[in-house]
Amino acid sequence: MAKKKELGIQSKKEKDFSKWYTELINKAELADTRYNVKGFVCYMPWATRTIKKMYGKYEAELEKLGHEPLTMPSVIPERNFKLEAEHVEGFSPEVFWITHAGKKKLDERLALRPTSETALYQMYSLWIRSYKDLPFKRYLSCQVWRNEGTTRPFLRAREFHWIEAHNVFATMKDAMAQVHEDMRTTHKLLEEEFAIPIMFFQRPAWDTFPGAVHTYAADALTESGKVIQLPSTHLLGTNFSKPFNVTFTDKNGKKRLGFITCYGPAISRIYGAMIAILGDDQGLILPFDLSPVQIVIIPIPFKGKEQKIRKECENIKKLFENKYITKVDWNDDKTPGEKFNHWEMKGVPIRIEIGPKDLAKKQAAIVSRLDGKREFVKKTKLEEHVNNIAKNYTAKLKKRHARRFASLVKKTGALKDVKDALNAGRIACTGFCSINLDGMSCAETIEKMGGLVRGKKISGEKNKFKKCVVCGKPAKETVYIAKAY
Amino acid sequence: MAKKKELGIQSKKEKDFSKWYTELINKAELADTRYNVKGFVCYMPWATRTIKKMYGKYEAELEKLGHEPLTMPSVIPERNFKLEAEHVEGFSPEVFWITHAGKKKLDERLALRPTSETALYQMYSLWIRSYKDLPFKRYLSCQVWRNEGTTRPFLRAREFHWIEAHNVFATMKDAMAQVHEDMRTTHKLLEEEFAIPIMFFQRPAWDTFPGAVHTYAADALTESGKVIQLPSTHLLGTNFSKPFNVTFTDKNGKKRLGFITCYGPAISRIYGAMIAILGDDQGLILPFDLSPVQIVIIPIPFKGKEQKIRKECENIKKLFENKYITKVDWNDDKTPGEKFNHWEMKGVPIRIEIGPKDLAKKQAAIVSRLDGKREFVKKTKLEEHVNNIAKNYTAKLKKRHARRFASLVKKTGALKDVKDALNAGRIACTGFCSINLDGMSCAETIEKMGGLVRGKKISGEKNKFKKCVVCGKPAKETVYIAKAY
Repeated sequence: MAKKKELGIQSKKEKDFSKWYTELINKAELADTRYNVKGFVCYMPWATRTIKKMYGKYEAELEKLGHEPLTMPSVIPERNFKLEAEHVEGFSPEVFWITHAGKKKLDERLALRPTSETALYQMYSLWIRSYKDLPFKRYLSCQVWRNEGTTRPFLRAREFHWIEAHNVFATMKDAMAQVHEDMRTTHKLLEEEFAIPIMFFQRPAWDTFPGAVHTYAADALTESGKVIQLPSTHLLGTNFSKPFNVTFTDKNGKKRLGFITCYGPAISRIYGAMIAILGDDQGLILPFDLSPVQIVIIPIPFKGKEQKIRKECENIKKLFENKYITKVDWNDDKTPGEKFNHWEMKGVPIRIEIGPKDLAKKQAAIVSRLDGKREFVKKTKLEEHVNNIAKNYTAKLKKRHARRFASLVKKTGALKDVKDALNAGRIACTGFCSINLDGMSCAETIEKMGGLVRGKKISGEKNKFKKCVVCGKPAKETVYIAKAY
Repeated sequence: MAKKKELGIQSKKEKDFSKWYTELINKAELADTRYNVKGFVCYMPWATRTIKKMYGKYEAELEKLGHEPLTMPSVIPERNFKLEAEHVEGFSPEVFWITHAGKKKLDERLALRPTSETALYQMYSLWIRSYKDLPFKRYLSCQVWRNEGTTRPFLRAREFHWIEAHNVFATMKDAMAQVHEDMRTTHKLLEEEFAIPIMFFQRPAWDTFPGAVHTYAADALTESGKVIQLPSTHLLGTNFSKPFNVTFTDKNGKKRLGFITCYGPAISRIYGAMIAILGDDQGLILPFDLSPVQIVIIPIPFKGKEQKIRKECENIKKLFENKYITKVDWNDDKTPGEKFNHWEMKGVPIRIEIGPKDLAKKQAAIVSRLDGKREFVKKTKLEEHVNNIAKNYTAKLKKRHARRFASLVKKTGALKDVKDALNAGRIACTGFCSINLDGMSCAETIEKMGGLVRGKKISGEKNKFKKCVVCGKPAKETVYIAKAY
């Protein structure tokens, strides 16, 4: 890679989040936005490695829960696409169309899949026969393409990398149980593994996936004071089963429509949210498991001691390399200080420094990326010390952000407080008349204040508010309101 | 999945390879060809799981050899695509073109990548600056799209899944060393891991990748008597560096063109070749590591002993499940015999049967998919026995096919023998005047006989033939001739 002066990030995350994010992407070499098709970017090796690990973790969890992997064509014939009316209306403006192969015009246009419902469900109608085939749980790891307006690396792009799980059940109740499973999966992956605090909502009726009965989705909050939608799961009910003929024969030999759910964790977007939420003014911070390098060893050169320092670095590498992804930075063109900055920018969790003093004192200097403090550890304690940092790293990171997230939720019954919360980059929690279509006019009042009604929680929260924060009618729901991307 | 009568494969592999392959794909539920866009198929879970494992093995090897993973956009603007004249000529007839987004016509057509040279190298010209950046080794795991004429699941499709590695070097010599590394990688993965015997050739000048100096590729032989091209690597030299401006500054500060190689293991195609070559009339045979299930346990029900048999099956599962992917088939709708057939069809390497007699004798019946023989093994020896089968399974499979492959090469100096060898589904090895363009007319004579000159070996073989098998002029090369897909 071309040598660049590594000056660190010049923007401050708290002051100008958007500029900070762009600098992070460039200086940590995560994406290159110079690709010559607008809205399409290259993911660089450091990002690609982490994204692969995220896929691995998500796929393992989905498989544990009974989903089987499938691979589907990326193209969908126009006739399929038109079978579900709301769906086609929702997605049509964004679809990329293939019209030619070589010089030949195709008989039928092909959509580059913006999502796979209309590709999959015709096959489901062939694959599912009997109640014994249910629940039928499948997932795809793939890209989708949508001609989005504004784009931003990882967070919103015209091609993004996701997983979509599409499940069929015998009853609406089973389908709803899947929504709850998806919610648990989202909390487990995003919070435990990726250290991103989220809330999980049932979205209002006016913010539902085209063709769904209900949409449920996670929101995370970035430093800009805006929430970003992370995995969503859609209760499709029989809306797609009807046009696509997804049926099964029940125990009594009767043909019935299947109840469908679909869940779409957008891995590249979660990656974007993760680096945005966890990073700081020194650069990336990554959960321990997800960093492409977990321990970096930096030799501090000293005349006459080069051989001994080299050997010690190699010994320490040997000590850890079977357990952690360990690297010694032998680059001759950089000073130790430049190397510190470089690996901080890359978010490597543990740095070990070996200099002449450390050799003499039989110790090493250890720095955790989480707090940046340098600790001197005797060689005999080194392994234990590093294992301790490694073991607690992600949990600490998670705790830090969970605490911050919780502190940014403002419970209030007053519209003025909602407005203040939004302006302060917070999430307001308040009473609302309805998240069905009859609540839409109150939501429009909120929208004029710059906020969006994100929805209500689907577990563990009873409404305690008496009145709708806008119209003053009895509050049926406790909702959360935030600015959003 | 809908219940089907599992009758096994009706066609014989030796008699009608093509029909046998189609039946295998359907009955082992590997792909569904009923997707409603011609030439595009669904990969079913059993195939997807193995293909993922194959990706994992290939990626690990490439990374060990210094390649870093990248993720690139799937679309290439038309202007890039036109920069290398031979390349555009070679690929244009097969390219799928995106012309619209929503209702809007795009300002410039976008090619759905048929291969990534013209997407990548413009970025390489930004990423590579100095000789210190070289060698520059990157790979993508992705799909490509080509409007192929005849298609066949996995082996040739309009969308296929591959890896492409694109490397840049300071000299032609370094680039050529990469070709040899790619050859070793191909032998290691295809032969050691996937048990597919191959030969690796430099292709004749008339059979070179559009835009390449030379093309090198592996061939495997199927039961149809035709070879199938497996991974190929292309020495691009500076043919793409010039139009895409891939340059570096050398030690003396002088700007130089980079020398490029690209290597393209098509994982989905290798999967097709693997199941085609290794399978038999009972169904799939898979290398041990690649099977989605490695051990299947079948309870043989017996009235009054159900509880004991169930418990024993569960105990045996526990014995193996931490080391191997182990499954007990509890399906009540099938007889043990139907289950045996089912898992043979799926290619599960080891079957363990537990019935009342086995309980009484403290033994289990073990069947290896490789030979189908049933062995009765005492419980105390069970673990050792299974470990032994597992350890030697892939090597045995490899040996079986390597022996067969070697026996099918016919060395000859006579044109009549070449013809006979081709008609007998063999590969002929013979003398040839030239694999440069001056040898093309002799190659055309071979083509009229139904054969293709596949090329010469690039390591370990000196030419011992005196005359060209066609024109009788002095033979410069020892070449291999075969029928081909």
